[in-house]
Amino acid sequence: MTANTYPAARLDRKRAALLLVDHQVGLLLGVHDHDQEELRRNVLALAKIAKAQDLPVIVTTSADEGANGRLLPELQALLPGVRVVRRPGEIDAFGNAEFEAAVRATGRDQLIVAGISTDVCVAFAALSGVAKGYQVHAVLDASGTWNALASQAAALRMQAAGVVLNSTVAVAAELLHDWREQGGAELAGIFAEHALPFYGSLVSFVASQPEPAGV
Amino acid sequence: MTANTYPAARLDRKRAALLLVDHQVGLLLGVHDHDQEELRRNVLALAKIAKAQDLPVIVTTSADEGANGRLLPELQALLPGVRVVRRPGEIDAFGNAEFEAAVRATGRDQLIVAGISTDVCVAFAALSGVAKGYQVHAVLDASGTWNALASQAAALRMQAAGVVLNSTVAVAAELLHDWREQGGAELAGIFAEHALPFYGSLVSFVASQPEPAGV
Amino acid sequence: MTANTYPAARLDRKRAALLLVDHQVGLLLGVHDHDQEELRRNVLALAKIAKAQDLPVIVTTSADEGANGRLLPELQALLPGVRVVRRPGEIDAFGNAEFEAAVRATGRDQLIVAGISTDVCVAFAALSGVAKGYQVHAVLDASGTWNALASQAAALRMQAAGVVLNSTVAVAAELLHDWREQGGAELAGIFAEHALPFYGSLVSFVASQPEPAGV
Amino acid sequence: MTANTYPAARLDRKRAALLLVDHQVGLLLGVHDHDQEELRRNVLALAKIAKAQDLPVIVTTSADEGANGRLLPELQALLPGVRVVRRPGEIDAFGNAEFEAAVRATGRDQLIVAGISTDVCVAFAALSGVAKGYQVHAVLDASGTWNALASQAAALRMQAAGVVLNSTVAVAAELLHDWREQGGAELAGIFAEHALPFYGSLVSFVASQPEPAGV
Amino acid sequence: MTANTYPAARLDRKRAALLLVDHQVGLLLGVHDHDQEELRRNVLALAKIAKAQDLPVIVTTSADEGANGRLLPELQALLPGVRVVRRPGEIDAFGNAEFEAAVRATGRDQLIVAGISTDVCVAFAALSGVAKGYQVHAVLDASGTWNALASQAAALRMQAAGVVLNSTVAVAAELLHDWREQGGAELAGIFAEHALPFYGSLVSFVASQPEPAGV
Amino acid sequence: MTANTYPAARLDRKRAALLLVDHQVGLLLGVHDHDQEELRRNVLALAKIAKAQDLPVIVTTSADEGANGRLLPELQALLPGVRVVRRPGEIDAFGNAEFEAAVRATGRDQLIVAGISTDVCVAFAALSGVAKGYQVHAVLDASGTWNALASQAAALRMQAAGVVLNSTVAVAAELLHDWREQGGAELAGIFAEHALPFYGSLVSFVASQPEPAGV
Amino acid sequence: MTANTYPAARLDRKRAALLLVDHQVGLLLGVHDHDQEELRRNVLALAKIAKAQDLPVIVTTSADEGANGRLLPELQALLPGVRVVRRPGEIDAFGNAEFEAAVRATGRDQLIVAGISTDVCVAFAALSGVAKGYQVHAVLDASGTWNALASQAAALRMQAAGVVLNSTVAVAAELLHDWREQGGAELAGIFAEHALPFYGSLVSFVASQPEPAGV
Amino acid sequence: MTANTYPAARLDRKRAALLLVDHQVGLLLGVHDHDQEELRRNVLALAKIAKAQDLPVIVTTSADEGANGRLLPELQALLPGVRVVRRPGEIDAFGNAEFEAAVRATGRDQLIVAGISTDVCVAFAALSGVAKGYQVHAVLDASGTWNALASQAAALRMQAAGVVLNSTVAVAAELLHDWREQGGAELAGIFAEHALPFYGSLVSFVASQPEPAGV
Repeated sequence: MTANTYPAARLDRKRAALLLVDHQVGLLLGVHDHDQEELRRNVLALAKIAKAQDLPVIVTTSADEGANGRLLPELQALLPGVRVVRRPGEIDAFGNAEFEAAVRATGRDQLIVAGISTDVCVAFAALSGVAKGYQVHAVLDASGTWNALASQAAALRMQAAGVVLNSTVAVAAELLHDWREQGGAELAGIFAEHALPFYGSLVSFVASQPEPAGV
Repeated sequence: MTANTYPAARLDRKRAALLLVDHQVGLLLGVHDHDQEELRRNVLALAKIAKAQDLPVIVTTSADEGANGRLLPELQALLPGVRVVRRPGEIDAFGNAEFEAAVRATGRDQLIVAGISTDVCVAFAALSGVAKGYQVHAVLDASGTWNALASQAAALRMQAAGVVLNSTVAVAAELLHDWREQGGAELAGIFAEHALPFYGSLVSFVASQPEPAGV
Repeated sequence: MTANTYPAARLDRKRAALLLVDHQVGLLLGVHDHDQEELRRNVLALAKIAKAQDLPVIVTTSADEGANGRLLPELQALLPGVRVVRRPGEIDAFGNAEFEAAVRATGRDQLIVAGISTDVCVAFAALSGVAKGYQVHAVLDASGTWNALASQAAALRMQAAGVVLNSTVAVAAELLHDWREQGGAELAGIFAEHALPFYGSLVSFVASQPEPAGV
Repeated sequence: MTANTYPAARLDRKRAALLLVDHQVGLLLGVHDHDQEELRRNVLALAKIAKAQDLPVIVTTSADEGANGRLLPELQALLPGVRVVRRPGEIDAFGNAEFEAAVRATGRDQLIVAGISTDVCVAFAALSGVAKGYQVHAVLDASGTWNALASQAAALRMQAAGVVLNSTVAVAAELLHDWREQGGAELAGIFAEHALPFYGSLVSFVASQPEPAGV
Repeated sequence: MTANTYPAARLDRKRAALLLVDHQVGLLLGVHDHDQEELRRNVLALAKIAKAQDLPVIVTTSADEGANGRLLPELQALLPGVRVVRRPGEIDAFGNAEFEAAVRATGRDQLIVAGISTDVCVAFAALSGVAKGYQVHAVLDASGTWNALASQAAALRMQAAGVVLNSTVAVAAELLHDWREQGGAELAGIFAEHALPFYGSLVSFVASQPEPAGV
Repeated sequence: MTANTYPAARLDRKRAALLLVDHQVGLLLGVHDHDQEELRRNVLALAKIAKAQDLPVIVTTSADEGANGRLLPELQALLPGVRVVRRPGEIDAFGNAEFEAAVRATGRDQLIVAGISTDVCVAFAALSGVAKGYQVHAVLDASGTWNALASQAAALRMQAAGVVLNSTVAVAAELLHDWREQGGAELAGIFAEHALPFYGSLVSFVASQPEPAGV
Repeated sequence: MTANTYPAARLDRKRAALLLVDHQVGLLLGVHDHDQEELRRNVLALAKIAKAQDLPVIVTTSADEGANGRLLPELQALLPGVRVVRRPGEIDAFGNAEFEAAVRATGRDQLIVAGISTDVCVAFAALSGVAKGYQVHAVLDASGTWNALASQAAALRMQAAGVVLNSTVAVAAELLHDWREQGGAELAGIFAEHALPFYGSLVSFVASQPEPAGV
Repeated sequence: MTANTYPAARLDRKRAALLLVDHQVGLLLGVHDHDQEELRRNVLALAKIAKAQDLPVIVTTSADEGANGRLLPELQALLPGVRVVRRPGEIDAFGNAEFEAAVRATGRDQLIVAGISTDVCVAFAALSGVAKGYQVHAVLDASGTWNALASQAAALRMQAAGVVLNSTVAVAAELLHDWREQGGAELAGIFAEHALPFYGSLVSFVASQPEPAGV
């Protein structure tokens, strides 16, 4: 399993692409292994991080005219120029030729995957990605599924297959390497607004400190 | 306890005022009886509801230059014209003359109170309000405190003293009476954006249904 | 509070009516103080119990063409002859003249109320019912609301106003008095199929015991 | 509510009787508001406490030939001389003439009640007991019910009706008054073996301390 | 561990068989790592999925005349033509010659296993299946066991032995590949009725949307 | 219940005394309704608050040579001059003549009570205190008991008997009235060190802010 | 990791020995990742299972004259003839020559290990056992530790080192193979009395079914 | 994975160094997978253990003039002579040359790492450490992160990469080997004061036992 060890498995902004799979308004309502609003905030954070780091982003949805619902409107609003691959029936995103071609066209060999649900959309895309030779990072806390045992099964299945398990804040930090590099200035703001509300409180707190004479 | 029964205890937009007590960025970080982000969304919802219903709103903070932190900036942004009574030391908001005068000046006899913490800022203001002859509604889910036993103690203490225990969505619905009245058109949007994210999903869902030919 | 004590406050099949308020498919998706499926099973049990005990049943919905969604289809299927009062805007069911007339027409003075949400639909109907002179039983576990603090606020507010807090199985048992009376034969089946799945397991268990020679 | 205040509401070994209602093997399997084994330990503790304090004990079961199951065998073993009132159909134990006569025959005016379920067997017996002029103590942690909302409803309903809410260890301590009185010598052992396993560990711990020279 | 990676480890409707091990009414009552009703819904979903996908299904029970209880009657009703291998004593299902022969007779090399309990019936069958050369998928959320640590031990033990950990909805989706293939039309209905009640709500929701003029 | 309303029920540093009942090292190990360390921090905070506000403090223990264990050593260290009433057998502290005389000798009419366990030591002292004419405040989060149902029973029993339910931070704030009064300077430090560790973090945070040029 | 797969890793009554490490009354009081009473019941079950299967049993304690406390007295009572290796200081049991010799003297190559704490006593003995060439099964639910993260760390560390993670009931079932073999008759009783109280209820339930004429 | 097995992977006081990464007052406020105060106690314990065992300690912080906050003051106070590497921007501590040089200068090949957050600071340092040839132990319960899924992802990612997952008490015990060696005398005190408060209670308990005549 050395493939999961540094430096080979370290995310690199020149090598990575972000794949967001089936973050749809209907599916979000069934997530029970994770706070639905924390999931929503994390996927918005991932989208902003990808923009700040110039990562290619591919968004896909499944049967979005039925009970699954459309793409989360806040996510669509954040990614105005991004094409959404609307899969008519393929459950594994890599089973859709347009999606696979779009991934290949990015020229990237590291895939950051999040989606709903963890055990279906994320796991299938991750397992297929590994089978096709990509290094895959599954972002557990920007994903969600129907119950705690399905969540555990998905995590352990992906781990056993060589998928790197990751999280929203760690993906951002791993791509950035150093707060002084490209995107660093925006990152605290993305954390504060989306992924880490407590950090937003601390940023407000620092900003609201009285002038020194008042301390 | 007939004072807590309808019709006497029904909130009325002509009789009610909203008091927001110590929703400060530092204090929010200590809330452990309630999801901090749900609390934040609920107090923003209360502020918007008050505007939609033309309720007087009084905001107050305690020692906001120290560890308590400043007023939540999102809340301040929602209430541009509202004066904030910055209490220099009085813990019970009614112990501050400016606050009490502001409440009296509203001419209202129903006080809707939320704050941090439930057992201090909310309970003291509520108990003093009852003592001064107001009918008081404490909004538990737009408030929060340090642990579950403090939360329970505060709720039961207020109940025993004749305070009406209430919740964010119920306050909105009770003031509105009928979705066809003033503010009704905005209320679903306030719920969707703040207090009830699942409702936002359903609203998105309704809006995203395919054109009729597609059903 | 002697009004809440036996014998005055004991449910009686000749005095009671069942009011089901806003058990709608959209609203159910927002329930977070209670398992959504347990709520669904309990309201189905209440409907069957009412039929077995010949109680009048009144069903009402709120704005059922929008995000609230239609009445739960399983509930509608169980109550084929029951008229549904579709309220166009009134939040308190007693604010709708048709609903109030239907309640009055039952001639009953005990109202068993369940609904979504506990703090809005149930609490408002219960408080208005008390104000109009009814004895009201709120069935907490056939109702649900958005968060635990709203649930607690609703329960304590209703208790303070003289509403009797009750639960699905207790309502059934209180109406029945004795397993040998009308409806008793069906009740174990209703519990087994809906309100108490463990009881269904035990009933299967008893039924599956081997023939006596095998014991 | 002075009836709930000391000294009138203090349990007294000369005034109290213990009523154990429907602690049956089938019903125990459906308890979900409380650890089933802690419930079992507490009811065994109550039975032993009653013996140590010479309280009259009345045990009753409901339909014990069907899915409810027979009386817990450990409980039966602890109470060899106690008659069990096997109710053929009455749900409220006081609806059974034999049970009511047995209670009356004790000559006691304080009833300590525990059972399964809290919202049915305990609440009905407690409410009827209050209606008949007894002071009733409901022992919540030697009772149990199907879900958390049913548990909350039962507790608040009984509180509103004047029932004293109590707990296993408190009942024992309240009857005893002083560790040096009758039954005191046995009580630590009852706690250690049943109601408070940590106390059993501490007793073992004290007993296992090395001889002084070894400290 | 490449055996756990795609494409080798992808479920295929031509290669897979479903084994349901000891879903018995008595055993279900002891499940504490998972909601018992969610487990019940998931195993019913698996049975329906197998039928829709033409998978061979083998059902087995252990000592079903004693405390384990008979096969869940709902499961038996769903699988009228399926033979149930009633094991008289062998704990590992593969220790029973009839069971092993039935599995071999299917000619399938992928085994989907669910049962009660995860750490005994599922783990033993899965470990023996791997030892016999099958690729085994254990469906965690259609299985259950006695406590959280036993659940964790079973999952990690099976992962270490090369069993693929899976979940109900993922098994269905993995077999289907594409919603437009055989069984796809039925799958949404199976999810809605059994495995994913929220999905049933959404389907009702979509179906209940008003005609376009009404929006 | 006007006795529970302001201004009559407001704690006053001239009227109040603090009673700490049975905070012993053995008993603490059995607390399961509350984090044991949070309980420990809160009782230390109460002791310091009493000193800062010049309240009389009475400490008592029960059978402290056996399994209950001695008084918490940290608590004893904080209160060097305070006499500890070591009760040889009386469970209700007011049953001990020395304790009762000590309380009477304070000349105070408001009693702030905390202890282990809530349902025995706190409830009995509180109920006896009310019976003797004191206004009693029970501090729930500086107390603890054996399980959640015992905790709930104790809180509701005390509420019904007219005891004011309170919490550690609220007691401090209620006694202080205004941060600029006696004890105010120390209170933030007491909160930071004991009752509210998050507050300690914020205080450290404020203190560690860089010099203004660095902001 | 084929060493963890069947048939090599299947427990065998001729190959296995049971090691119980530091189940002491003091240490049990610190367990927080598992119900302390469930742990106690499981270790008693393991001891009885070993006797029924004729497994060698080695019990060891660490510094049992200090705060760790003596061996659980119930465990000692169950194992009258078993020598207890009282380690004066070695934390890893295999660091004690007497313990290691005792293990070697059993002639067994499969070690079943349980103890307090999972991350210290169990993990160290398990890791040393693997290093010495034994196949080791760690019984998670007859062990316990101080917090959930320590529990997770210990489980994953042992899994990575080739320890088989197991559970009490699975160990019993794996040793037995078939309910008709040696020890099978006793096993249901051991489960009913110790490891699986629900099973005890079912056994009582079966035994209490009425005579056939009564069904 | 033999690298994770004893004896190679056993911590040794001659081979190990302790790295504390980003235990800062701001970051601590965002920890939600673990009790913040337990984390604080554990990191203080680690620092004391390192001193007692003469381990080199390296402390580092990230951007400690902004929202992350300064190093925990209690930690700083415990380590007066330890240099703190204040990283201006590098997120992976090994990306900072001063830090890497300090680690190399210790001459140790076993690194014990704890920090906030587990998925960023701990995981990156651990993965880089492994890549550089160190054996790395990550101390999960002296670390923390933002949500449970991020915590799980970090643990499984590190496990897959060959990091040994460990816990505070186990690290201490593993370094010590035998209570009679260097540091053993202090260790019980460190546990009692920091990592294991229950142990402190037991130690107090032992110390408070009455003189022999009194037992």
